[in-house]
Amino acid sequence: MTNETARIEAFSDGVFAVAITLLIFQVHVPPHEPPGGLRIALIDLWPSYLAFLASFMTIGVMWLNHHRLFSFITKKQDGLIVLNLLLLLVITWLPFPTALLAEHLRGPHADQQTAGLVYATSLFAIAIVFNVLWRYAIRIDAVGDHANVVGISRQYAIGPVLYAVLVVIAYFSADWCLVISALYALYFALPPSLLRRRME
Amino acid sequence: MTNETARIEAFSDGVFAVAITLLIFQVHVPPHEPPGGLRIALIDLWPSYLAFLASFMTIGVMWLNHHRLFSFITKKQDGLIVLNLLLLLVITWLPFPTALLAEHLRGPHADQQTAGLVYATSLFAIAIVFNVLWRYAIRIDAVGDHANVVGISRQYAIGPVLYAVLVVIAYFSADWCLVISALYALYFALPPSLLRRRME
Amino acid sequence: MTNETARIEAFSDGVFAVAITLLIFQVHVPPHEPPGGLRIALIDLWPSYLAFLASFMTIGVMWLNHHRLFSFITKKQDGLIVLNLLLLLVITWLPFPTALLAEHLRGPHADQQTAGLVYATSLFAIAIVFNVLWRYAIRIDAVGDHANVVGISRQYAIGPVLYAVLVVIAYFSADWCLVISALYALYFALPPSLLRRRME
Amino acid sequence: MTNETARIEAFSDGVFAVAITLLIFQVHVPPHEPPGGLRIALIDLWPSYLAFLASFMTIGVMWLNHHRLFSFITKKQDGLIVLNLLLLLVITWLPFPTALLAEHLRGPHADQQTAGLVYATSLFAIAIVFNVLWRYAIRIDAVGDHANVVGISRQYAIGPVLYAVLVVIAYFSADWCLVISALYALYFALPPSLLRRRME
Repeated sequence: MTNETARIEAFSDGVFAVAITLLIFQVHVPPHEPPGGLRIALIDLWPSYLAFLASFMTIGVMWLNHHRLFSFITKKQDGLIVLNLLLLLVITWLPFPTALLAEHLRGPHADQQTAGLVYATSLFAIAIVFNVLWRYAIRIDAVGDHANVVGISRQYAIGPVLYAVLVVIAYFSADWCLVISALYALYFALPPSLLRRRME
Repeated sequence: MTNETARIEAFSDGVFAVAITLLIFQVHVPPHEPPGGLRIALIDLWPSYLAFLASFMTIGVMWLNHHRLFSFITKKQDGLIVLNLLLLLVITWLPFPTALLAEHLRGPHADQQTAGLVYATSLFAIAIVFNVLWRYAIRIDAVGDHANVVGISRQYAIGPVLYAVLVVIAYFSADWCLVISALYALYFALPPSLLRRRME
Repeated sequence: MTNETARIEAFSDGVFAVAITLLIFQVHVPPHEPPGGLRIALIDLWPSYLAFLASFMTIGVMWLNHHRLFSFITKKQDGLIVLNLLLLLVITWLPFPTALLAEHLRGPHADQQTAGLVYATSLFAIAIVFNVLWRYAIRIDAVGDHANVVGISRQYAIGPVLYAVLVVIAYFSADWCLVISALYALYFALPPSLLRRRME
Repeated sequence: MTNETARIEAFSDGVFAVAITLLIFQVHVPPHEPPGGLRIALIDLWPSYLAFLASFMTIGVMWLNHHRLFSFITKKQDGLIVLNLLLLLVITWLPFPTALLAEHLRGPHADQQTAGLVYATSLFAIAIVFNVLWRYAIRIDAVGDHANVVGISRQYAIGPVLYAVLVVIAYFSADWCLVISALYALYFALPPSLLRRRME
């Protein structure tokens, strides 16, 4: 049963693992500055750290939810595999807007805005695809009769709404866009264990 | 039985996952432009997005078919492992022509043509190796007695023909080469679920 | 039982594998020097080799202990997954201070010190998170009744102390910081097999 | 039984997969040349292709033999894990000498020699560590009573000798060093299936 989806999960885990680990390679080591200048140069890198952290949390939490989602899915179908590839497409895309935002977070306001909108829109796209995948799994009856399927559906449905709000926020402030995307990740990571169930 | 090939699949999944995730690192963040210039610079990156998308789809669909192929293979032999390594060789090679095409898609016509021909020939090589692997698996009787083996063989046999046509297209237009390679990927991703069977 | 944590381990293995393999990409090939100058240029790269070695050993040994730790954990809980993500966060962060130290180990003293402190503090953070993860696993009773749980707890508890000492060392010498962090890794790799048990 | 070593194999597979896939990222896309100059520039990259191919084959064949080796190992011990980490250390190191040789294969003779010697010595180190790992596995009786253990030992024992010869060859010609290392990889890939057994 669960073996049905084992290789999809293994491949997805690989993609998530590579994407999350490569984020740090977008943080560039400052070159040789005037002696003693490294401390300042490192502090000036804060947009890169913040972008690394927000995207790490987002991908980590996406993995977490992907893991949860597939623990409910008991059969596979070609459509599921293709939708899963679509999810991986938007996940592997994320390092690009992350690097973009890190690079331009202290740039001219118009460029901050552009980078922030690209970043927020990318997260919005991930939320949409994730919901489509989940709903498709329910529709093809791949999901078992767990009582909490309804609860999960409701929780995931909030995702696109929250990330649509994030796009609006990004229009006004790229900084807040990053901070709030990290908070969103916390929300999607923590509540289920508090609100819904204890996996034992 | 299926454990026989488990570690080959795990290693292959790893290679596919790394190759597909690293494609985005060939899309370079535009440096600081004149204020407000980022929007234009991002739009000008379209060849990189297109190349990313086409190669993501190609590798994703190759993984999908590799996954299908190995779900039929019930024993392993050294020859199979070596042919699988050969397939991984052409897969890991793909990020290079992808980056090449992205870089030169807006360059002089002669260079577009060169980059397009390298890209299309690489995809052609993948199609050839994939067919050799599949036929070898049938020849050594590693493939079970599934009714649809013949159907799959026929579908895969079209691959080299389609990609030979792609080489000809690349000779005339690198743009069309990319677009059509993405359409080919869709063809190899979708039909089997529609035409042949429902995996349940 | 152990399947409960299988996918957490698979994802973590992926992250460890990517992080450890990418360390070498921080060692840059010297460009074309005056003819015959490559030998000298390669020797001058010793800080990069040393940083590669120390970080490889650290991540390798972290994987080793992660592997041991999860061999004791028999059930999962959301908290465990989130703490594990936190551990992966500090692990994936490590390539940055590694590259930082390699780049500035022969720089002005103040910059050596800065880079050394960032490196040592990062290792200290890993030791802290690892202990928190282990203690949490004990607290939620996810750990079986193995006699050597107490022994492991004691051994791990030394970690934060040793790495706090490393921060002090880094204040005085970035070179010694690297050498001693490699020795620490040896300590965490070897003793358990000598002192405590033989896995058979 | 085989589960004992499952996670070591999974982690090793990950490292092998990342190392082998990243080799292509050492082949750099030629920048914009005079119009029509791309074809020549691509041809001039042959040292990079050759180095990519030789190292791909070497890592691929190392994975193949690692896979074979662990299919015989039925229990694990801390020493085995540490030796396996040592093997992964020399494997992850290989992309550096690969890039080094690709970069300097057309450089001044003295630099070719330096790069060739570093490359050959790295392969020699891999052969040594692989033999130590195999002999250790036999010594701790982790290897089952397979008739072909003796045959494998003999075959592996040739490795260090062949790679010591490669170091001598590299002293005279970096080109031949690359070509012969690819041939060595073929030798270690193919014979076992022809000479020794048929895995079924």
